[in-house]
Amino acid sequence: MQNGVNREVPIQIEGLGMLRPFQSIQGYGPVKNIERLKERQMNPSKNKIIGSLEEAIRATGLKDGMTISFHHHFRNGDFIVNMVMDVIDRMGFKNLVLAPSSLTDIHAPLIGHIKNGVIRRIETSGLRGELAGAISNGLMDIPVVINSHGGRARAIASGELPIDVAFLGVPSCDPYGNANGYSRQNTAASACGSLGYAKVDAQYAKNVVLITDNLVSYPNVPFGIPESQADYIVVVDSIGDPKGIVSGATRYTNNPKDLLIAKSAADVIEASGYFTDGFSLQTGSGGASLATTRFLREKMIASNIKASFALGGITAQIVAMHEEGLIHRLLDVQSFDLTAVESLQHNRFHHQIDAEYYASPDNEGCAAHQLDVVVLSALEIDLDFNVNVITGSDGVIRGASGGHSDTAAGASAAIIVAPLIRGRMPSILNRVNTVVTPGHTVDVLVTDQGIAVNPLRKDIGENLKAAGIPTLSIEELKAKADRIVGTPDPIQWEDKIVGIVKYRDGSVIDVIRQVKKGV
Amino acid sequence: MQNGVNREVPIQIEGLGMLRPFQSIQGYGPVKNIERLKERQMNPSKNKIIGSLEEAIRATGLKDGMTISFHHHFRNGDFIVNMVMDVIDRMGFKNLVLAPSSLTDIHAPLIGHIKNGVIRRIETSGLRGELAGAISNGLMDIPVVINSHGGRARAIASGELPIDVAFLGVPSCDPYGNANGYSRQNTAASACGSLGYAKVDAQYAKNVVLITDNLVSYPNVPFGIPESQADYIVVVDSIGDPKGIVSGATRYTNNPKDLLIAKSAADVIEASGYFTDGFSLQTGSGGASLATTRFLREKMIASNIKASFALGGITAQIVAMHEEGLIHRLLDVQSFDLTAVESLQHNRFHHQIDAEYYASPDNEGCAAHQLDVVVLSALEIDLDFNVNVITGSDGVIRGASGGHSDTAAGASAAIIVAPLIRGRMPSILNRVNTVVTPGHTVDVLVTDQGIAVNPLRKDIGENLKAAGIPTLSIEELKAKADRIVGTPDPIQWEDKIVGIVKYRDGSVIDVIRQVKKGV
Repeated sequence: MQNGVNREVPIQIEGLGMLRPFQSIQGYGPVKNIERLKERQMNPSKNKIIGSLEEAIRATGLKDGMTISFHHHFRNGDFIVNMVMDVIDRMGFKNLVLAPSSLTDIHAPLIGHIKNGVIRRIETSGLRGELAGAISNGLMDIPVVINSHGGRARAIASGELPIDVAFLGVPSCDPYGNANGYSRQNTAASACGSLGYAKVDAQYAKNVVLITDNLVSYPNVPFGIPESQADYIVVVDSIGDPKGIVSGATRYTNNPKDLLIAKSAADVIEASGYFTDGFSLQTGSGGASLATTRFLREKMIASNIKASFALGGITAQIVAMHEEGLIHRLLDVQSFDLTAVESLQHNRFHHQIDAEYYASPDNEGCAAHQLDVVVLSALEIDLDFNVNVITGSDGVIRGASGGHSDTAAGASAAIIVAPLIRGRMPSILNRVNTVVTPGHTVDVLVTDQGIAVNPLRKDIGENLKAAGIPTLSIEELKAKADRIVGTPDPIQWEDKIVGIVKYRDGSVIDVIRQVKKGV
Repeated sequence: MQNGVNREVPIQIEGLGMLRPFQSIQGYGPVKNIERLKERQMNPSKNKIIGSLEEAIRATGLKDGMTISFHHHFRNGDFIVNMVMDVIDRMGFKNLVLAPSSLTDIHAPLIGHIKNGVIRRIETSGLRGELAGAISNGLMDIPVVINSHGGRARAIASGELPIDVAFLGVPSCDPYGNANGYSRQNTAASACGSLGYAKVDAQYAKNVVLITDNLVSYPNVPFGIPESQADYIVVVDSIGDPKGIVSGATRYTNNPKDLLIAKSAADVIEASGYFTDGFSLQTGSGGASLATTRFLREKMIASNIKASFALGGITAQIVAMHEEGLIHRLLDVQSFDLTAVESLQHNRFHHQIDAEYYASPDNEGCAAHQLDVVVLSALEIDLDFNVNVITGSDGVIRGASGGHSDTAAGASAAIIVAPLIRGRMPSILNRVNTVVTPGHTVDVLVTDQGIAVNPLRKDIGENLKAAGIPTLSIEELKAKADRIVGTPDPIQWEDKIVGIVKYRDGSVIDVIRQVKKGV
């Protein structure tokens, strides 16, 4: 047949099957539209900006029962979740599945949206504050699902957790949707650095709404989220509170117990067998973990050992070591402070990675599986070395799974740092109240009153012994704690399951039950 | 039931459906394997390196009839296609679909693989040399499919062109598969800069085999291809010939005809209505097109106009303008020379983009759709402004669709530069022999003997008139050429269709027939 440029073309060819003739102006796909071009001449950046959040929600085709997502890079300064949920509530949607990368104290208003049926269920990495308390007390009919960061990326990429609409706050965005966690004009009040968790949502969600308070000129490159994944852009007054976005969590600790633990942890790393030139590490942002990096730095300088990379949440301390040449590459899924944000913007080898690259157990290989050493905290650890980082000693949800189980599984040496006693409660139990990270992936426990090596890791035990570092069995460490504070009474639970803890592969590693009423 | 960490967990929950209990060591997903860790301690980079190409091919599960792909970033210096096809031939595979991003002179040995049935059909952007001649003379039973760069990315991303195994040559690669087109150790003899076309294959192919002659330490970041997309790595002696990879195509032309065309093209751009601060441009690497940039540079300096970005294939000339502050951002899908390669490595705002971001008509918006001005060459153009860049005046395939139709459709002003007469043949015909780019997306034709504006673009016509730039109708320009060289005899064709030219949306815009035997 004759096609749109007056050429005789076949509609079928053996070996190629059916063919579609070119249709010219009327056809599928973009063609040059003179009216559009006139408009562009006035406003060279063809754009995706839409007038309001409500219009954007309507444009996505959101329906009752769908799954929506958010990222947690704004931490406790996040305005996006509450802002979007208020509009969604006003518009009358019901029964939504909320699947953010994490939730925290600032999201207490979700309690109202759960009560009035706007939110049917939640998948998240963490929960804190009032919302966590209400859920632990039986607020929801369907249990919350707790995912690790790698597990969430895996579930989204595999289609197990399909996202209908992702609402992603971005500290800079051009009119076509190239977005970043900082701004080259230094105008991003809400700068959060890496958009590592959000990148997964942008890539896989059916609809992506970017929400910004900082529109910049096209093209906003380098970008964390590319234009090719952005559907709609909404400009609002403010997407977050800088004070909550960058916390003080990465300041040097002066707590003597933390310093003692940190020094021991650095000694353990040095003796572990993995402290060789080109080793790699991840450390959390807690006091003891951060201080470990400080002691490790001294050992690296003394032994002339450089790290090939640091992974995960990046802090000022890690940036400083990168800039003094002690760590060659930073793989940043989450920037913890302004120094890290600025480094991501300016240091070429401080590289923004997504959560799938970081920790998914399901792709062709993630960076967590390349780790030599990870230093992780714990709320509780048990005689099997299982770790709880999600429920407190009262059984109430108060933490996040995060990258804990991902990096413990991937690292050659997973080192847990914790005080032997916290408040009046021992950190070591016969059985942790909630298992997040299975004990066979945990290698060493470092407390302020002694070190225990997982018997599965005879190699590490022997290395520590050879270096003259004294160790105890975990049973001996537990006995030490029990002698001081006694064995705590077991937590009282109701029967109702309020949370399902998934391991990174999507299997159920534990459940969280409702805490006993009136206790 | 009791799960792998001895917890009682449900296998079903209302609202969540069926659940899978955690299985511990035996389970799905990675767990800490002590044997593996011992090995890692000796060789900290867990790796995907496989002994030989043959082993890698076996590991991918390649079967007769499957689709395999390659990239063309090594241009006429490419060793990968011939190397892989020789092994595949030796291993006895048949009926494969070859879907590289493009093919060129160096791939003449494919003729043998077609004749002996290893290759059943080909999808590519371009064909040149002996292979193109043989195909134009009826070598293949099934017509070659010609895709634009954006059209190929669209077809791959949409699943219309599923790739079973991508064999991607990479100038640097770590043992886990972070790969780039350059090397921070400056050891990449085969440096090609951007891996823009290969990135699409890496993302969507079921199996990805990276082939390198330059193994570097982990983590090779920034990366063009991430570890999370790489399945196997094969190390070979050499992946390409540097002399063929970076051509001399970007040298300054001294050809007076080219300079005349270039000067006119720059004048047209200046008067077009799109030459305003923040405009954007793409220019090819041919003589006239490159020289256009040179004249445009002078106008930009004189008028204090800066470009927001340059797109597409990046050249030394464009890099120089970026470094002197005239072009803010470079979006690089293909680096044409060593200067561009080095700039990509060192200039933070010289950004590597993939072919989908560059030009796919199907995603949420590609950079080509943001272009103000594109300068493109042509083998033939006709009275409807349709352009041929694939078949020569003898009807034989000798070019590539490339980004021609993508950028013509996307740019506000698509300017074709061509000599009015090439050899003894006129560039303007009543009907081009093969339509690659439809005329309604082409705006201006600039020749050495006059300028014609597409009547669809009255706005540009009026702008040129107001600036005192004389124009002719395309019919008048054609008459000029015909007066000098006469009207050429029509090409003699056989009935057999040897090529299908697809528009970027996948529709058939034209066919290529076998050239007449014995002519």
